[in-house]
Amino acid sequence: MNVDVIVREVGLRDGLQMESTFFPTGQKLAWIAAEAAAGVSEIEVTSYVPPKLIPQFIDAEEVTRRSMEIAGLTVAALIPNSKGAERGLALGVHKLNFVMSVSRTHNLKNVRREREESMADFRRIVELRNAMPESRRPVVVGGLSTALGCSFEGRIPVDDVRRYAAQYVEAGADEISVADTVGYGDPALVRKVFTAVLAEVGRIPVAAHFHDTRATGLANVAAALDCGVRRFDASLAGLGGCPFAPGATGNIVMDDLCFMLDSMGLKTGVDLARLLAVRDIVRGSLPDAPLHGALARAGLPKNYIPASQAERRVA
Amino acid sequence: MNVDVIVREVGLRDGLQMESTFFPTGQKLAWIAAEAAAGVSEIEVTSYVPPKLIPQFIDAEEVTRRSMEIAGLTVAALIPNSKGAERGLALGVHKLNFVMSVSRTHNLKNVRREREESMADFRRIVELRNAMPESRRPVVVGGLSTALGCSFEGRIPVDDVRRYAAQYVEAGADEISVADTVGYGDPALVRKVFTAVLAEVGRIPVAAHFHDTRATGLANVAAALDCGVRRFDASLAGLGGCPFAPGATGNIVMDDLCFMLDSMGLKTGVDLARLLAVRDIVRGSLPDAPLHGALARAGLPKNYIPASQAERRVA
Repeated sequence: MNVDVIVREVGLRDGLQMESTFFPTGQKLAWIAAEAAAGVSEIEVTSYVPPKLIPQFIDAEEVTRRSMEIAGLTVAALIPNSKGAERGLALGVHKLNFVMSVSRTHNLKNVRREREESMADFRRIVELRNAMPESRRPVVVGGLSTALGCSFEGRIPVDDVRRYAAQYVEAGADEISVADTVGYGDPALVRKVFTAVLAEVGRIPVAAHFHDTRATGLANVAAALDCGVRRFDASLAGLGGCPFAPGATGNIVMDDLCFMLDSMGLKTGVDLARLLAVRDIVRGSLPDAPLHGALARAGLPKNYIPASQAERRVA
Repeated sequence: MNVDVIVREVGLRDGLQMESTFFPTGQKLAWIAAEAAAGVSEIEVTSYVPPKLIPQFIDAEEVTRRSMEIAGLTVAALIPNSKGAERGLALGVHKLNFVMSVSRTHNLKNVRREREESMADFRRIVELRNAMPESRRPVVVGGLSTALGCSFEGRIPVDDVRRYAAQYVEAGADEISVADTVGYGDPALVRKVFTAVLAEVGRIPVAAHFHDTRATGLANVAAALDCGVRRFDASLAGLGGCPFAPGATGNIVMDDLCFMLDSMGLKTGVDLARLLAVRDIVRGSLPDAPLHGALARAGLPKNYIPASQAERRVA
């Protein structure tokens, strides 16, 4: 199906990494299968971090392997370093999302090394990828965390974001992902940052990863759309949070994101009613987690016509 | 103080009209005074509807009179018809917000008459206003409810919104207010509607009234800002809801709106910390009402620099 915007589910990684309760492997796979069936074409299914650091991802290999059996689904995984990349390459995963924070302090806290060490490791990952047979080479994404602000450092200079984006491209990244890890972004800052990054790395895709911590998430999506961004991360029911902001919401809500895009006439390939039904799987396995989402509460507008039939809408 | 954007509190009207519990007059006045002290320069303090229809507004006269004692505050009230206007004119209120729905069905349900009857009554209101001594003439606002969709009729043709806006101007409106009464709007539709209305009535101010029913509220604000809109309604803690969408949030959250604008470098004149403190007054009088708001949960970003000192921000 032709889509205007690619929406990418990250709740199984960004959402579940916050949950102390183990989400059973079978339920993860049910979630992935149901969301893929609803039309979500790319899912970050897990993280290749040491299970002793985050026990939630002890089933990373099984989740990856089984997800790759779903026809048409792009299976992605987060990697903090080349050790993680090796696990992904062994599995033949489709996409490796490497993380580095633009904020020096955040990178030290999150992956325990300097940004230059992260970047050097990213170059090794590209080499490992290039050494693979062509049919098994994953897409390698350079992630820029805390690109719109940092809970340790506050504001982050736009030029730092631009500079690391350029380094990623030079190192051989196939795609860049710009993340507002702690939800500090606003539409004006989003325009500045994405305009700078797109001007620098325009020839490869640039994705946006927003958190809704201070309610600006979907406004930031709209601003990034204006800049030309067509790939957005989100998590079903806004699962997840921020370890530095107790009670705060986490990623933007997938269901609300898909509604906004579809309402704007932008095709996502996602069936909204089927997507909303997937929330029951999350609720079943995490009965105590707060599920966010305005569309789930309010329902679709009266006589709603999806983007795929937008020509039927009145002027 | 010079501001870039005027934010207008409507929670005392749009929020409280949903509440079956009577919010004590003294508490309403405490809320108004505290929010004015936090820097909100315009408040819709009540509605001149018959108290037997909405008992919450039985104290409309007292609330208006006492609010007008606050220096620098623009005191506004909603009016459904010329009877309400007469009450406002007798009080010398600063601003009369007249409501008419662009949707025929919604207008019939809400004010029990045809749109043409509403418009004819609006002309009488302008005449009544013009007959007042100049020093006591209120600003008369022509409101366009359900301008972005209707829970009875679904989509509303953009040209209907434009046409009624033009009729308001011809009738002598000082300002137009375009309302997404049931939260159907998205940034693309907002652009279409506000571009059409502004082109038609450009010489008088156009305000926006958004509901966050489907999570698009602040994204719609950002889109309207792009069109040149500089007046926005909101309610503290998102108080209120929609009688046609149980459990749905109501107006956009004043605190989150002010944060987004301020973060974008747009001065509102509002002190965010003092504004957040006003939530306690609402909580005290409506202990069972759900208070919304992401900023209240997450707090300000680290080292946050307000718009009034934006020159200190790093690039």
